Amino acid sequence: MANPTGLAGRRSAAERKPRKERWAELIETATQVFYERGYEAASLQEIANRIGMLKGSLYYYIQSKEDLLFEVVNEVHQKGLAVVTALAQGPSPSPLERLHRVIRGHVEHTCHNLVPTAVFLHELSALPEDRRRQVLGDKHSYQGVFRSLIEEAKAAGEVREDVDPKLAALSILGSANWVYRWYRPDGEFSAQQIASHLAETAIRGIASEAGLASCTR
Amino acid sequence: MANPTGLAGRRSAAERKPRKERWAELIETATQVFYERGYEAASLQEIANRIGMLKGSLYYYIQSKEDLLFEVVNEVHQKGLAVVTALAQGPSPSPLERLHRVIRGHVEHTCHNLVPTAVFLHELSALPEDRRRQVLGDKHSYQGVFRSLIEEAKAAGEVREDVDPKLAALSILGSANWVYRWYRPDGEFSAQQIASHLAETAIRGIASEAGLASCTR
Repeated sequence: MANPTGLAGRRSAAERKPRKERWAELIETATQVFYERGYEAASLQEIANRIGMLKGSLYYYIQSKEDLLFEVVNEVHQKGLAVVTALAQGPSPSPLERLHRVIRGHVEHTCHNLVPTAVFLHELSALPEDRRRQVLGDKHSYQGVFRSLIEEAKAAGEVREDVDPKLAALSILGSANWVYRWYRPDGEFSAQQIASHLAETAIRGIASEAGLASCTR
Repeated sequence: MANPTGLAGRRSAAERKPRKERWAELIETATQVFYERGYEAASLQEIANRIGMLKGSLYYYIQSKEDLLFEVVNEVHQKGLAVVTALAQGPSPSPLERLHRVIRGHVEHTCHNLVPTAVFLHELSALPEDRRRQVLGDKHSYQGVFRSLIEEAKAAGEVREDVDPKLAALSILGSANWVYRWYRPDGEFSAQQIASHLAETAIRGIASEAGLASCTR
């Protein structure tokens, strides 16, 4: 599915575009339709109509509506994961400082990908268990990035002794995820402003005195 | 609707129960069905079946499925609002200390009302604008409780100068709301434990040095 193979035949204008471009268009349109209608109510017919393809031509790319949902949620998840993983491995020797960057990066990624993020958060549960696990990774890789940094920071004395890293990771990721519900591109607060606020308050929330002092921002 | 009037006639066992009791049962069942199926897919027929009433008898209580959704989301919202409003007006002279209690109270309310909270958060947008405003209040009363306390705390020097009260209120309410997605009654963390953690980290996130010192916990 990620490397669709097309077949020759009678093709519309949309269908004559390069395969990779058509695939991107298909994913983008499916994301929008899932967002507007909800996954259950969304139909392959409508997705095909919007990109000017015959419904039957969709089957060159996917076998079912579920395949499309899998691709949509997997794509936004993998992209976000790449962002936070890169930031977590950044040059700063302070894990708390790196966590600060990871939170900012995650929030900005969310703000710049509102529609696919909403589909991910609303519809992930519509996938069967095995495909859900395929997206999230066996060890909840996304949450794991946050948790590992908090554990590392705690071991370095940058996080208070009474903070549970798993609980803190869930809580920080939660406040960051929730942004998709209230951020608006034309709203009062910019993505950058929200990202900085959330990172700053999350770090102060868990930091030890030494952590606050060592975490230069 | 909140004070339903019944009519006499041929009545099933469920229908012979006192009116107030039947109303409570109707709301509870509707909440469950909206949760399981989603509002769009839920049918009055199924709700009637589950409580052993004729579908036609539902019209003694409501005029439409939308009336039921309104009642469900309004009830959980009003209950939560009563909890946080009472805590916000508590005896402590420190607004930050009161905010701490408000956050704990909101998180515990969420954990103890997982299903109606999920319906509220997922389906509020299915109500037309005027009924949504009727639930939330013109000035977003729920968010307002958090925001007012943060403003008060800032004026008292308990909150850092660079904290925007509206942004902070949205962010705190967000991390607290998100709990409905991962809290499980039989899970690793108790409602109380999550509530304390979220309150503690949120307060530390925005407090000035004076605020931290004055907020005895």
